[in-house]
Amino acid sequence: MSGDGTNGLWFGHLSERAQRVGPSPIGGLMVRALEQPALISLAAGFVDQASLPVEAARSAVLSALAEPEAARAALQYGTTAGDVQLREQIARAITDADVAALHANNPDRLTAPLNVPRAENMLITAGSNQILALLAEALLDPGDVILCDAPTYFVFTSIVKGVAGRCIGIAADEHGMRLDALEAELARHAHDGQLHRIKAVYVMSYFDNPRGVSLSAQRRAELLALVERYSHNRPIYVIEDAAYRELRYEAPDLPSLFSYDKAQKFVIYTGTFSKSFAPGVRVGYGVFPPDLLQVMLALKGNLDFGSPYLNQRLVSHALSDGLYEPHVALLRSVYGRKAACMLDALEAELTPLGIAHWVRPRGGLYVWVELAAHLDTGEQGQLFARACELGVLYVPGEPCFPEGAVQRSCMRLSFGVQSEPRIAEGIAKLARAIREQL
Amino acid sequence: MSGDGTNGLWFGHLSERAQRVGPSPIGGLMVRALEQPALISLAAGFVDQASLPVEAARSAVLSALAEPEAARAALQYGTTAGDVQLREQIARAITDADVAALHANNPDRLTAPLNVPRAENMLITAGSNQILALLAEALLDPGDVILCDAPTYFVFTSIVKGVAGRCIGIAADEHGMRLDALEAELARHAHDGQLHRIKAVYVMSYFDNPRGVSLSAQRRAELLALVERYSHNRPIYVIEDAAYRELRYEAPDLPSLFSYDKAQKFVIYTGTFSKSFAPGVRVGYGVFPPDLLQVMLALKGNLDFGSPYLNQRLVSHALSDGLYEPHVALLRSVYGRKAACMLDALEAELTPLGIAHWVRPRGGLYVWVELAAHLDTGEQGQLFARACELGVLYVPGEPCFPEGAVQRSCMRLSFGVQSEPRIAEGIAKLARAIREQL
Repeated sequence: MSGDGTNGLWFGHLSERAQRVGPSPIGGLMVRALEQPALISLAAGFVDQASLPVEAARSAVLSALAEPEAARAALQYGTTAGDVQLREQIARAITDADVAALHANNPDRLTAPLNVPRAENMLITAGSNQILALLAEALLDPGDVILCDAPTYFVFTSIVKGVAGRCIGIAADEHGMRLDALEAELARHAHDGQLHRIKAVYVMSYFDNPRGVSLSAQRRAELLALVERYSHNRPIYVIEDAAYRELRYEAPDLPSLFSYDKAQKFVIYTGTFSKSFAPGVRVGYGVFPPDLLQVMLALKGNLDFGSPYLNQRLVSHALSDGLYEPHVALLRSVYGRKAACMLDALEAELTPLGIAHWVRPRGGLYVWVELAAHLDTGEQGQLFARACELGVLYVPGEPCFPEGAVQRSCMRLSFGVQSEPRIAEGIAKLARAIREQL
Repeated sequence: MSGDGTNGLWFGHLSERAQRVGPSPIGGLMVRALEQPALISLAAGFVDQASLPVEAARSAVLSALAEPEAARAALQYGTTAGDVQLREQIARAITDADVAALHANNPDRLTAPLNVPRAENMLITAGSNQILALLAEALLDPGDVILCDAPTYFVFTSIVKGVAGRCIGIAADEHGMRLDALEAELARHAHDGQLHRIKAVYVMSYFDNPRGVSLSAQRRAELLALVERYSHNRPIYVIEDAAYRELRYEAPDLPSLFSYDKAQKFVIYTGTFSKSFAPGVRVGYGVFPPDLLQVMLALKGNLDFGSPYLNQRLVSHALSDGLYEPHVALLRSVYGRKAACMLDALEAELTPLGIAHWVRPRGGLYVWVELAAHLDTGEQGQLFARACELGVLYVPGEPCFPEGAVQRSCMRLSFGVQSEPRIAEGIAKLARAIREQL
């Protein structure tokens, strides 16, 4: 704590908040992958490299820059909320998807969504993660609570921790969050007079990260009813993170949780073009209950008064020029094959061992493998070290768990980045590392 | 405060932070400008529309997407810090500018900068405003202080207010922040045992918003020495916002404050390509003392784990393909003419009234006009209303003042957006509105 102001370490000059944030829980894994290029990384949540839409992006950006006046507009500042034409396109696309999914699933004989997104309630950001970060600012004071699946998206728990909020984990099964467990947690808070602390339920409603599981259609309506029932004087919001909605390859689409929100004041819907088009373009969005939108706009105004407008025009043209849908169709087929490859390899390599369990994902980018409880998958453990030695990397399950029962015997495997032969080879190496621990 | 959870207004469901942020102080002005398209807005800080680099942007983005492997990389996620090649280009450009400016100015017989930026200490963001927002998170707890010019950039004061920090205004003259006033404020805090509350001095060092004034070369070295002297155990950072550095049209460049930081631990340098290239591409950056960089990366990781990579590759190609420098040269000439036009009109229209004073800006986008103290420029006042009626819009000075002596008789005029005839017409209308108040 001594110093003349120019030498030695500084202490205590950062905010409390700065002292809460740490490096990414998987930052070390990324460094390892870079240092050891032969390593087969089944860890990174990057998207398939080969299918990135080079031609479509080029075509869309040229469209955005073709007509001189529109080109200059694309290179100027936009509004904080984002391009209204793109917002309208997104609103239409969500509505169309919800209508089609309702008809296909018809879980409770609805024929029209109870809630449809409107462009004026939407905010465009550089990826939907920004929406999650701004929502944490908007909703959480220190000690406030978000309920989420256990396990859940580890960047989200890191965001919540960054504002001194708490993520409490709710048990989940192959149909998503268990509503009996959710209700028990709500009731416990109500009983303790702490219900006002619960600001939202976070649900990755389609092919979640890390498990690849979707909340079932029946549970969507019930979850909404439950949240409404416990919203006394103030709403318990539902943050519906639909980042992987488009990446389905074996399942019909489901109506969004948002579409069930007949009061139009509980559900925030977030989505992104990072997974379904290109992460390097980085366009995401959120749809908000109107009272919350104003706060989000003010926070976004302070952050950067609106995300890059050129990228928004690029995506708008990708949608209107017919470049987006064929790309999504391609991705479904590419990821469908990769998922099948990983599942076949897991079946062949791990099933005989009798110590591994996974839910077959029907979309998204991940398989979540639960091993027998005595097998520690942690970054400091023997299994992880041996897997790295053999040349395969996975995400240990532990950082994916919010407060509550942390399991140390799980791993997240991504089939997004690697080719099919490398996926098969990676799973074989992983199985060898596991066998050696038995 | 009553309700069944689905009707009526909600109360108390937002964070304290959300309750601190408000709409942009000039949001109402923007709405007015949109509602009244004939209005000559001298308010918006947008850039000149006609000179936006359509051809250069098209060429640069095509370069970024030309070679298949590089194209796919540009469409993939990047790193949180941003493209290393672009960071190296920026570091080189700042170094070159500082070396050239040192030789040209040679204020204290330095022949080489004491500090040069390094790519590994840099973070790329979507506009440099994001750097300011993340810095406020990193540095400020409630009640912490930033010292800044009075007047200063009003989005910055809004950001600081958003994290419950305080901006204290320091008197400034035609050479920038007055160091006697800065020292007095530092000494006052030291005397009161509150020096630890001062986290940084914010300086828009080139052609500041709203006054168009640059901190003089001599004051740069002295400001650094002063800040070092008051940094006991912890640094008082200097946030050097160089957003307008490239937009000089009548003055030689000055060495950055950053270049004087021989301890390499006080100055944070931020810049952007929004003003000098295209706001719609939105690439900004910050260079940090190493210990602060890690925190900034963690905060940026939670926010969006890195800004759109395609835009970074676009700017990198604009720099390496020789598209950027000629565009900056064009902007200097365009804005130089517009500034001269506004200054000529002010001279012709306001000087005869004997109640107006302004400092001639030699760069940037703004002229700051101080009227006689009895003339209220505020949004609720008669002058503002009459100016709008006559068809001209300005930014009232009041929101530009941090805590301290707020002046209600100033206005910020931007010559960025309007054509020269419209600038002249706007100033004539403004002068008429002012004359009517006398």
